[in-house]
Amino acid sequence: MNLLIINGPNLNLLGVREPGIYGNKGFEDYLQELRSVYQDVTIEYLQSNHEGEIVDAIHRYGFGEADGIVLNAGAYTHTSLAIPDAISAVRTPVVEVHISNVFRREEFRHHSFLSPVCVGSIVGFGLESYRLAIESFRIRK
Amino acid sequence: MNLLIINGPNLNLLGVREPGIYGNKGFEDYLQELRSVYQDVTIEYLQSNHEGEIVDAIHRYGFGEADGIVLNAGAYTHTSLAIPDAISAVRTPVVEVHISNVFRREEFRHHSFLSPVCVGSIVGFGLESYRLAIESFRIRK
Amino acid sequence: MNLLIINGPNLNLLGVREPGIYGNKGFEDYLQELRSVYQDVTIEYLQSNHEGEIVDAIHRYGFGEADGIVLNAGAYTHTSLAIPDAISAVRTPVVEVHISNVFRREEFRHHSFLSPVCVGSIVGFGLESYRLAIESFRIRK
Amino acid sequence: MNLLIINGPNLNLLGVREPGIYGNKGFEDYLQELRSVYQDVTIEYLQSNHEGEIVDAIHRYGFGEADGIVLNAGAYTHTSLAIPDAISAVRTPVVEVHISNVFRREEFRHHSFLSPVCVGSIVGFGLESYRLAIESFRIRK
Amino acid sequence: MNLLIINGPNLNLLGVREPGIYGNKGFEDYLQELRSVYQDVTIEYLQSNHEGEIVDAIHRYGFGEADGIVLNAGAYTHTSLAIPDAISAVRTPVVEVHISNVFRREEFRHHSFLSPVCVGSIVGFGLESYRLAIESFRIRK
Amino acid sequence: MNLLIINGPNLNLLGVREPGIYGNKGFEDYLQELRSVYQDVTIEYLQSNHEGEIVDAIHRYGFGEADGIVLNAGAYTHTSLAIPDAISAVRTPVVEVHISNVFRREEFRHHSFLSPVCVGSIVGFGLESYRLAIESFRIRK
Amino acid sequence: MNLLIINGPNLNLLGVREPGIYGNKGFEDYLQELRSVYQDVTIEYLQSNHEGEIVDAIHRYGFGEADGIVLNAGAYTHTSLAIPDAISAVRTPVVEVHISNVFRREEFRHHSFLSPVCVGSIVGFGLESYRLAIESFRIRK
Amino acid sequence: MNLLIINGPNLNLLGVREPGIYGNKGFEDYLQELRSVYQDVTIEYLQSNHEGEIVDAIHRYGFGEADGIVLNAGAYTHTSLAIPDAISAVRTPVVEVHISNVFRREEFRHHSFLSPVCVGSIVGFGLESYRLAIESFRIRK
Amino acid sequence: MNLLIINGPNLNLLGVREPGIYGNKGFEDYLQELRSVYQDVTIEYLQSNHEGEIVDAIHRYGFGEADGIVLNAGAYTHTSLAIPDAISAVRTPVVEVHISNVFRREEFRHHSFLSPVCVGSIVGFGLESYRLAIESFRIRK
Amino acid sequence: MNLLIINGPNLNLLGVREPGIYGNKGFEDYLQELRSVYQDVTIEYLQSNHEGEIVDAIHRYGFGEADGIVLNAGAYTHTSLAIPDAISAVRTPVVEVHISNVFRREEFRHHSFLSPVCVGSIVGFGLESYRLAIESFRIRK
Amino acid sequence: MNLLIINGPNLNLLGVREPGIYGNKGFEDYLQELRSVYQDVTIEYLQSNHEGEIVDAIHRYGFGEADGIVLNAGAYTHTSLAIPDAISAVRTPVVEVHISNVFRREEFRHHSFLSPVCVGSIVGFGLESYRLAIESFRIRK
Amino acid sequence: MNLLIINGPNLNLLGVREPGIYGNKGFEDYLQELRSVYQDVTIEYLQSNHEGEIVDAIHRYGFGEADGIVLNAGAYTHTSLAIPDAISAVRTPVVEVHISNVFRREEFRHHSFLSPVCVGSIVGFGLESYRLAIESFRIRK
Repeated sequence: MNLLIINGPNLNLLGVREPGIYGNKGFEDYLQELRSVYQDVTIEYLQSNHEGEIVDAIHRYGFGEADGIVLNAGAYTHTSLAIPDAISAVRTPVVEVHISNVFRREEFRHHSFLSPVCVGSIVGFGLESYRLAIESFRIRK
Repeated sequence: MNLLIINGPNLNLLGVREPGIYGNKGFEDYLQELRSVYQDVTIEYLQSNHEGEIVDAIHRYGFGEADGIVLNAGAYTHTSLAIPDAISAVRTPVVEVHISNVFRREEFRHHSFLSPVCVGSIVGFGLESYRLAIESFRIRK
Repeated sequence: MNLLIINGPNLNLLGVREPGIYGNKGFEDYLQELRSVYQDVTIEYLQSNHEGEIVDAIHRYGFGEADGIVLNAGAYTHTSLAIPDAISAVRTPVVEVHISNVFRREEFRHHSFLSPVCVGSIVGFGLESYRLAIESFRIRK
Repeated sequence: MNLLIINGPNLNLLGVREPGIYGNKGFEDYLQELRSVYQDVTIEYLQSNHEGEIVDAIHRYGFGEADGIVLNAGAYTHTSLAIPDAISAVRTPVVEVHISNVFRREEFRHHSFLSPVCVGSIVGFGLESYRLAIESFRIRK
Repeated sequence: MNLLIINGPNLNLLGVREPGIYGNKGFEDYLQELRSVYQDVTIEYLQSNHEGEIVDAIHRYGFGEADGIVLNAGAYTHTSLAIPDAISAVRTPVVEVHISNVFRREEFRHHSFLSPVCVGSIVGFGLESYRLAIESFRIRK
Repeated sequence: MNLLIINGPNLNLLGVREPGIYGNKGFEDYLQELRSVYQDVTIEYLQSNHEGEIVDAIHRYGFGEADGIVLNAGAYTHTSLAIPDAISAVRTPVVEVHISNVFRREEFRHHSFLSPVCVGSIVGFGLESYRLAIESFRIRK
Repeated sequence: MNLLIINGPNLNLLGVREPGIYGNKGFEDYLQELRSVYQDVTIEYLQSNHEGEIVDAIHRYGFGEADGIVLNAGAYTHTSLAIPDAISAVRTPVVEVHISNVFRREEFRHHSFLSPVCVGSIVGFGLESYRLAIESFRIRK
Repeated sequence: MNLLIINGPNLNLLGVREPGIYGNKGFEDYLQELRSVYQDVTIEYLQSNHEGEIVDAIHRYGFGEADGIVLNAGAYTHTSLAIPDAISAVRTPVVEVHISNVFRREEFRHHSFLSPVCVGSIVGFGLESYRLAIESFRIRK
Repeated sequence: MNLLIINGPNLNLLGVREPGIYGNKGFEDYLQELRSVYQDVTIEYLQSNHEGEIVDAIHRYGFGEADGIVLNAGAYTHTSLAIPDAISAVRTPVVEVHISNVFRREEFRHHSFLSPVCVGSIVGFGLESYRLAIESFRIRK
Repeated sequence: MNLLIINGPNLNLLGVREPGIYGNKGFEDYLQELRSVYQDVTIEYLQSNHEGEIVDAIHRYGFGEADGIVLNAGAYTHTSLAIPDAISAVRTPVVEVHISNVFRREEFRHHSFLSPVCVGSIVGFGLESYRLAIESFRIRK
Repeated sequence: MNLLIINGPNLNLLGVREPGIYGNKGFEDYLQELRSVYQDVTIEYLQSNHEGEIVDAIHRYGFGEADGIVLNAGAYTHTSLAIPDAISAVRTPVVEVHISNVFRREEFRHHSFLSPVCVGSIVGFGLESYRLAIESFRIRK
Repeated sequence: MNLLIINGPNLNLLGVREPGIYGNKGFEDYLQELRSVYQDVTIEYLQSNHEGEIVDAIHRYGFGEADGIVLNAGAYTHTSLAIPDAISAVRTPVVEVHISNVFRREEFRHHSFLSPVCVGSIVGFGLESYRLAIESFRIRK
């Protein structure tokens, strides 16, 4: 199984940015762990602060290049319509994840334009939200 | 590990009710499967159509009787403040699950009073949402 | 033809409660009259102040036990999502009735969560709203 | 007993217009049936696509010319204040009817300016909504 | 000075309609009085329940046929955009009047689409609102 | 007849302030004219930029000291609840006036807390709005 | 090809009404030009200030009398539900046009009840919006 | 004097639940204190997590069984219409109390459906809110 | 114990103003009664129709001059932010009172800017609301 | 005449993406057709999924490089303020097009930030919307 | 250069009031510092808790008495229309300042009625916001 | 002191774009002036029309590369959540500036997602807003 993890804006600062909210482990370290747990899964990884690059990536992996996409679109979750349009346009299933419990934070983080076009959403389990998303693709398969 | 699954109103009709949305497998059958997959976990189960009974159950299991609660509060997700108040009042962590992708359905199903007081939310993976919730408690442990 | 009439919260006080709005005839007396007018119809009757009991009753009568349900959910009309979910989940058709013209009263009584999932609504004819609902099942048949 | 049925805009196309919503029986045919069922009731009928003509008609029949008016104001239900003002101004009681269950349709059809000034509303019983309205006048009498 | 008074829907029932709000003097009688008070003013009068006829009348008198228009558009005050568009399109100044204090009545009567395109508004002086409107044209002259 | 004119905040700058909106005649000059036109009316005048002083004045003149109050509360029209409470509390009738057509200006000037508690409102006739208000008291008498 | 152009309220004043917005060419002159450009198209024309007459016209031409309708409903675009209901009820395709760019004008002109039931909308090209609408029918054919 | 205190959902956890907000004294202990202060008052006490049971209790004590009801409906304060309907239906006066200052907490706790149908509200005095409510009945008497 | 009672705008008319809502006893008389009941409490009293004077008074008594302030800010309850800012700025605790049940009155009286910054609120007990507020300070002590 | 067509995000998938909404012809093929129909027009073409690149392109072609721009900004229509700011900043006229009838789709697609700053909008004619836009520039010229 | 600094309600408590938000330096001390830094500028100072006095001051200094006004209207920023009307009415330019970053505080502090009528706004720099405002007048000059 | 000025979309057109609003001096020229005034400050400059590039830049300079950032995010001020998330994630303080008084312009320019996460905001002083921002960093130091 090939999976793509896409991380949106500011998630490159994980471990540095607001550790009270996001914890202090960098994503690259966590990715290591994930890959060692799921040795039968090829996990590709992409981080971008550009809405358009996330759209491009979904297109590139959306027609068979990946069996599933795990997407944490960060702030674009709440402002982008181009990304959910990209998800609707491709065939690869997408699972939405969030590290923090966005429903406890600012009002504008309570609404996701992505949720209705993703298979499902996993919110609030810290970095393990990504692992649960991978599990969801394994169960599904 | 002891877990409690609480299902809210109308989920006793699972397998009968709107199979286009909820699938046609009854919850009891699914529970069997879960228990055989997670033999090291004691999974208790409770279904009620009464808001007050769900509050009572959270109180009863909320101070050590369970290590975690998996809650699908059905329609009470969107109308109850008594249930989230109960969750805030107890010590046992609660994970919110939904079978269908509620964000694709009627507007009033997009808002959950439970999300901010739960550890996290898992939405849209069919019955496997419950399994992912159990996984979340295992990872957490 | 078997019909079930369900009356929601505070309708047990009919004849006592706010007679300016609801009249001063108790529902039991009116039920007598209905039964003597419609001798070929078996009319069962249930009143409850509990949202969950109304859900339970709809489940119980919703798969063939009754040919139709006449439902005055009282205040739950405006606050319950569990009851309309129950109506959607069963096969028995439900007709919504209100004694008073709810559209002349407080703003919060103008919206019914039940209307979209019922066959139809009959509002404002005093106790005779129930009779018109029974007529609707007879015509339908 | 003399009753007037008023049909508002586009109801002249009944049987032609959107049969999925309104059925395929023309109103004239249905009126025949009603008249043969209620031989002791004189049923006059008027259809107009003009808001002003409906106001004029309510004035004309509103001071004793009819014992009751059955009104399906079609789209004017949701946009006209002149028609409800006419109903408030006359003495003849008016009952509001709708063929389809308007609460299942577009948001703008959920609000009626007529409901608060009519005796009552009968919604969603197909063409038989008119018959139930006539019944309501007979019971009332 | 030539003035045109236009009365909108249901104002033909003045003296009959809701006397608690509108008083019990018919408009024709009041018009008599106005004409005898203002003998140097030619006061034409037009009442219609049709939005389109009011638009037509404003066009007809809007290019010199009248020196001013006194308009009580009744319910169309709150629902019509065609009438204010007509007022903007013509050259004759229009003064808006209301008999009752609309700001004490239903919420939907608090907003007038006409006010911004009229010279001014006179609200709440009973039938004498019309007289004050005529005064306004005399002072203006 | 004794009348009191109350002008609210910034109206002391009339003739100076935004002449494009309010004209360039000072209120004192206009008051002269009014007094010479209505020689049988005692017109007292008060201007204040203080909400509390306007409340005080309404109390002082509200129990027989004046036969009527003409009130242009300026910006307090849209923000004060203390002034309309004062108007409700006294016996002297109050007429609301505005120089400019407030409905053509900023959104926040479209709503008046005063209108529902005044006898009536006269809006948009320039300084002559005051004269029409005086006329209204004379007609009333 | 037979086309019908329907112009709604106040469009009879084109060339006279607010030339800053609508230009100063009358519609009759423009119609001449259109007919000479499209000699193979029969262009019928109808203008009315009455909502009901526009509904009537759509009914009359909606079942084969015209191959297409070009509709500028003027102010009724924003207030009428009877006209879009008529469009939904007939078979003839309707294209919505506006002379001015309505999205630059008052807030209430930004919403059209017609757009969702028309084939498409052409907005802001001055009188040439009509020509583009005719082109759309020719391309479509 | 006989008084009934009704505590709604989660108030059985008082002393345990969120002590930062509600303090750490259990209600039973406090009730002791109250009874010893007001020895001439019979204070009955009822706690329930069920909306329907609160309605039932108000009915049971609402026709003379108690001289007054002190009601802290907890979360149902903000979601229940059945409870205020019950209060309107009975004769016994009800005083609303809240332990914490609900106006400092989440937005949804700022609105009470109970306030308009109760005699009065006492909010924010900790457990002593109940004592002030009892005082209010004593003064009233 | 030294307490200050502050009454806001129009409360100087108590006994005169709208007796249906506020009763017909003047506040001075009531103050007499209070002082004779609470002989161990020094009760100072201040009434003002000026928002700024209420702010000044809170400053003056807010740093030890009084042990508590009982505040009925009248209409300023709903419009003033300067008064709640003053309350937050001082050390003396403030209790909010209202004579009438404001939640039964106009919509704009349902919201208080003061409630979140006061210790607590006592609403709807007639003049005795002040007495209960004094009680609250005594219990507190 | 030189025209630039700009297509926004996901329009590179035309023919692949949701064919039920957008048809199954790729844009490149359609562009061929357009160029062969309009041989006297140089049609440049640019597609980007990046908001910033669309802004850059408008700047580059906005000062004489093109005689007109045909813009389908896709999802950025509803979320971008940078693109309309770019349109306001340049001299080249821009025409907005949409393939589908956006007013029939999700609520968030009903509002365009672009419409008020474009010359006009052409919506709902499938790919031919682009052709009509080119026509509009030819007529204009 | 003559400048006037106006401080609104509660700013007399600076250094005392909520030091977590406003710091603990009194304004008089800060004013000293400002005057010693800007020895070529005459800085007058006025503090008032009265909306009307702020209006009066703007009038007094608004026609040449000062070259500029630095205004921190405190809570009146969010509730007063009389003050912005005064600013619009005078000729002296006004710069709005806030000590704290109001956009991080309660929702009601996010909107300023003053901003649109002032030259500009300087928010969030602590007491140095005043200094930056003075700089702005110096640069401007 | 090292400062970074970031200009967002369309600000590269300064001096060209809408000179009525933004003036006609290009930013490069102004930057010259700034550098000559503040010779002890290293002022780096970056302009981008891409939201993602602004996020990247804030990351790059946000951990010590600059002592402060002066940010005019242009249209992204009102639509971007990624940029304020970047500001929250870094350590370098950011000051928000706007050239024009955005509060006088379109409604959508009144709200800034940046304000709450910046140190402060400086709005409406033309290009000198940047200079005041630099001053703020100097004073701060």
